[in-house]
Amino acid sequence: MEQQNEHIVRSYEEELSLLNNKIAKMGGLAEKVLGQSFEALDRRDPDLAATTINEDEEIDQLQRDIEEQAVVMIARRQPMAYDLRQIMAALRISTDLERIGDLGKNIAKRAVAVVTEQQPKQLMLGLKHMGELSLNQLKEVLDAFIERDAERALSVWYKDEEIDAMYNSLFRELLTYMMEDPRNIGLCTHLLFGAKNIERVGDHATNIAETVYYLVHGRPITDQRPKGDTTSSTAYTSLRSSNF
Amino acid sequence: MEQQNEHIVRSYEEELSLLNNKIAKMGGLAEKVLGQSFEALDRRDPDLAATTINEDEEIDQLQRDIEEQAVVMIARRQPMAYDLRQIMAALRISTDLERIGDLGKNIAKRAVAVVTEQQPKQLMLGLKHMGELSLNQLKEVLDAFIERDAERALSVWYKDEEIDAMYNSLFRELLTYMMEDPRNIGLCTHLLFGAKNIERVGDHATNIAETVYYLVHGRPITDQRPKGDTTSSTAYTSLRSSNF
Repeated sequence: MEQQNEHIVRSYEEELSLLNNKIAKMGGLAEKVLGQSFEALDRRDPDLAATTINEDEEIDQLQRDIEEQAVVMIARRQPMAYDLRQIMAALRISTDLERIGDLGKNIAKRAVAVVTEQQPKQLMLGLKHMGELSLNQLKEVLDAFIERDAERALSVWYKDEEIDAMYNSLFRELLTYMMEDPRNIGLCTHLLFGAKNIERVGDHATNIAETVYYLVHGRPITDQRPKGDTTSSTAYTSLRSSNF
Repeated sequence: MEQQNEHIVRSYEEELSLLNNKIAKMGGLAEKVLGQSFEALDRRDPDLAATTINEDEEIDQLQRDIEEQAVVMIARRQPMAYDLRQIMAALRISTDLERIGDLGKNIAKRAVAVVTEQQPKQLMLGLKHMGELSLNQLKEVLDAFIERDAERALSVWYKDEEIDAMYNSLFRELLTYMMEDPRNIGLCTHLLFGAKNIERVGDHATNIAETVYYLVHGRPITDQRPKGDTTSSTAYTSLRSSNF
């Protein structure tokens, strides 16, 4: 956390653009790790999963870089208002991207675990769609950040409901599938956690959307979007009425 | 994120002590939310669960407070070395405490969902022990922070393996229990996610331990503790050999 020894005197704009480039790079890596983890799960490819798990380290290193640069900039420049929000936005987005990298790593680990088994097509398709939507949300919100486009961020923010709805539906399907045949329980548990990981990716994309909105407007998104993951309060008794 | 209007000129030590008091308060609240969520789950108390879910908001507010004060301090004081580490430690710990609050809230939500059902004593006892251990880890590491005691932080860091081992064992028990009787699947899925939440609390206590160690020594913990949650790579085929 020591200040780094900078021999080149840069303008504030140059420093800021350096910081934003690091976020763009980190975002690209998070997209890559996430996309590969879905592909490893879909194609049952343990080698791709292993590569993906290793690539997360680079994301963590970038987060430390960004934090260090942000602190140095705050100390040197004592920025206010929009200038300060730019730096804080970079800091917050890097935290969300680091978590997204972790979630991708976790999905890749589960891909290794379920690699040898016949997987139910319908469920895997549901998971795949959920993954694609979350990846798309991530790309959209990173573009919104780069373009300082609050409206685009807002539409990402609203769209997270779709991921939540898919998660809730997949959650119920997975439980039903387990109940139909106990031999599915191990696989479905991995897929449940995988689906939960993807749902969390959506939450982090939503966080980034809030950060972009705040960066641009200097005030938080005030609308209260209804929380979408209702499975934590799903009374499982209602599931017993299924036909088995 | 604007700098707050401070009418009183404080010394650096006074500001730092204010910041540390906020962390202590936030830590106390996180302990409370977590402890209550375990109690709500154990006693099947939906009212306590509801209270707990609401209390998390105060933790979130404190995190925003701490971030704001930290940024103002970095900008005004341009601290270096140990002084800067103190502020960064507060920032990082507040992030972990905010996540712990969220996890407590999530456990409380699950307590509401499973409140009406007969719960298997053995499994609930396992979950309870895991909860107690995580709460104890949190208390220990917060004390280590207050006393700037790197050795104490290190022992918390090593002890996380115990939580991970309990999680791995509980994970297997829960899966076996589901396989024995499909009627257990709904309840056990909630307990699986609850156990995972507790395991995550342990990870955040470990993060705080790393922060305390770095704060005191100015270098990271170099030992590589083996990662303990191995369930993400548990090939579920091995579970099929169970007697059912």
